[in-house]
Amino acid sequence: MRSVAECVSEARQWDRLMQLAKLGAIAGDGVNRPCLSALDREARRLVIGWAEAAGAAVSIDAAANLWFRVKGADDSAAPVLTGSHMDSQPEGGRFDGIYGVVAGLEVLSALHDAGVVPKRAVEVVAWTNEEGSRFAPGCMGSMAWAGHTPIAAFAEVLDADGVRFGDALAEQLAAEADLPRRVLGHVPHAYLEAHIEQGPVLENEGLDIGVVTGIQGSRWFTVTLTGETAHAGTAPLAGRKDAVQDMVRAINALNALMHDPEDVLRFTVARVTVAPNSSNSVANHVRFSIDLRHPDRDVLLSKGDAIEATIRAAVRDCGVHLHEWFHAMPVAFDALVVDTVEAAAAGYRSRRMASGAFHDAQFAVPIAPSGMIFVPSHKGISHNPAEYTSPSQLAAGTRVLARSLMALAS
Amino acid sequence: MRSVAECVSEARQWDRLMQLAKLGAIAGDGVNRPCLSALDREARRLVIGWAEAAGAAVSIDAAANLWFRVKGADDSAAPVLTGSHMDSQPEGGRFDGIYGVVAGLEVLSALHDAGVVPKRAVEVVAWTNEEGSRFAPGCMGSMAWAGHTPIAAFAEVLDADGVRFGDALAEQLAAEADLPRRVLGHVPHAYLEAHIEQGPVLENEGLDIGVVTGIQGSRWFTVTLTGETAHAGTAPLAGRKDAVQDMVRAINALNALMHDPEDVLRFTVARVTVAPNSSNSVANHVRFSIDLRHPDRDVLLSKGDAIEATIRAAVRDCGVHLHEWFHAMPVAFDALVVDTVEAAAAGYRSRRMASGAFHDAQFAVPIAPSGMIFVPSHKGISHNPAEYTSPSQLAAGTRVLARSLMALAS
Repeated sequence: MRSVAECVSEARQWDRLMQLAKLGAIAGDGVNRPCLSALDREARRLVIGWAEAAGAAVSIDAAANLWFRVKGADDSAAPVLTGSHMDSQPEGGRFDGIYGVVAGLEVLSALHDAGVVPKRAVEVVAWTNEEGSRFAPGCMGSMAWAGHTPIAAFAEVLDADGVRFGDALAEQLAAEADLPRRVLGHVPHAYLEAHIEQGPVLENEGLDIGVVTGIQGSRWFTVTLTGETAHAGTAPLAGRKDAVQDMVRAINALNALMHDPEDVLRFTVARVTVAPNSSNSVANHVRFSIDLRHPDRDVLLSKGDAIEATIRAAVRDCGVHLHEWFHAMPVAFDALVVDTVEAAAAGYRSRRMASGAFHDAQFAVPIAPSGMIFVPSHKGISHNPAEYTSPSQLAAGTRVLARSLMALAS
Repeated sequence: MRSVAECVSEARQWDRLMQLAKLGAIAGDGVNRPCLSALDREARRLVIGWAEAAGAAVSIDAAANLWFRVKGADDSAAPVLTGSHMDSQPEGGRFDGIYGVVAGLEVLSALHDAGVVPKRAVEVVAWTNEEGSRFAPGCMGSMAWAGHTPIAAFAEVLDADGVRFGDALAEQLAAEADLPRRVLGHVPHAYLEAHIEQGPVLENEGLDIGVVTGIQGSRWFTVTLTGETAHAGTAPLAGRKDAVQDMVRAINALNALMHDPEDVLRFTVARVTVAPNSSNSVANHVRFSIDLRHPDRDVLLSKGDAIEATIRAAVRDCGVHLHEWFHAMPVAFDALVVDTVEAAAAGYRSRRMASGAFHDAQFAVPIAPSGMIFVPSHKGISHNPAEYTSPSQLAAGTRVLARSLMALAS
């Protein structure tokens, strides 16, 4: 009799990922599949079909998190839980998030093929809106499930077209009203998420598996600069209150503040909006985002807390408003799960490592013993159509996931 | 018998400006009335009514420039022409452009009230799309009239909503099909445009009237930076191709290139678009505008020609594309018109000065002897709801306009 890990099919898993990649396909092998969109619902129907074929029960909760459950021998015992998310960045790739859902499904299919019934039920979840690129912040589904933030608190968040999150969620729930509804929130025995690394470490070191020990912390800010519009042809530069120029001054100063010779700190300005955004009218409003991450809590706190004073000292003419709209302190995964994954990776080239990216798993940490498994990302490229992990690398990750879940479920 | 200048009514002119300011009114006494919009058409109908009451014949041309003509004693002689534009910036004021049209109408009304018939016909024009903020570049109507660029050349220009200029123009012409059509382009005896200064010089020096001797030159560029998107949490900063950071490097270098201790050079970056514009995805595309102006042709050429090499030397990681999409060399107005305006300003405190802003008048220069009259702008504020010139300052400008036109028409 073959083990569950032996029943993991590299070909089936790759084929499913490629079928999903067609939904929202963009140039260069990329994917643009926003959460709570028609494309998202189409992808979910595809996945539901595969889950049902593997004998899993399907349900959704009030945050539109999508659940698949295969019964355990002791079905009253807390289940082991795996999963990730199905939404993508606007110019995203074929693996970020969706790999963790498809890997979980592959384990359910392998359980079915192996004819194995573990002691504990095995559940797979597709969390709603991890990316945060349509509705900010990300991880709304896992935050709501974990009791971190009620889902209703996000209702008034608007996407770029002015659609309310609350309305988009209601539309999704209505479209999936045929699925059984489950209560939002429960305590699993353990949570384990498989994901692409989204960084270059595993590839650079020739490794197959990252045994993830924790996730670096994040602090996200929006900076608003308010100046005064004026005629670009007549207003002398000395008297202007030019919000674009003050943005440049602010970013120069922030670059100096955030400088890290070891290149561990992550500082990113990636969203900029300018008003009136007319080439011959001096800008009177600029908003820009700051994404700051670091694995060390003290560094994250000290650098983040210095942002406002740094900007105020740097700007020349504009009013400054700083809003920290999200933060997550660095988290450490549970030794039980980390050790289990490391043992399950026997036979593969693996290392322990922290996650550079932000994942739903960090919200599971306060709820249950949690962990993650990383597979390599080619050149570390992610949030980009060129994102790539080979079929065999993905299958290796799923085999380690299967062994880990079997160990945790027994 | 009262002269035409004496028949200029400060109250009537102010009342008309305030009526027009209601069409597209925005917070803080501002106006947002895009060219070729329903608001634009509503404003034009109001003005047409006033022109007809003054006995003027109304017509439009193929560029939707709107014309009012009062006959001269020798109606075969080339007319004297005045006017300006009726479109506004997105966050504009109540006087930029529209003052020159209302001042021209006020002269027609004063002619009517005075019962004067000058030798030459007097024409008032409202040029289409001077601002260039809905459809770029500006001055399309006057450029088409002057034979500088055929109106058809602008057909494919898109506004922010993706509307083609050609379609918006056709919609305007269809909505005004009841108005007689005149041929696009003719040679007037002289062209004289009244306008707010949009700079602080007249107010700072306690003057009433600017006798405008010419217009500084402009060069407008779009810079496109192409990098690579990546995950904001995982991609080490050293390996990024971050288009926002390269924009900051480029603007720093351009600020150094454009530095002018005398503050005569005008350098503005006011339109910035970033893609994918998601706070946690490194930007792979940035486009930003450069608006460069200077009254000295040699400075304009040397600084403008140095932009591309300056940006290429400054950026670290991104591809650079520079597109110069508009330029206008500095122009000098005709001595006949300048001297006429100066003589007409007798009794007012006036000075000769160059225009910092870009005006339809510069396209009239190759066609006919041309000039401009400036009235003060409070604090030099323009392209801003706070734009202000007092009723008596506006009336003074219109009286100088009336005297100048009467001199040129006799």
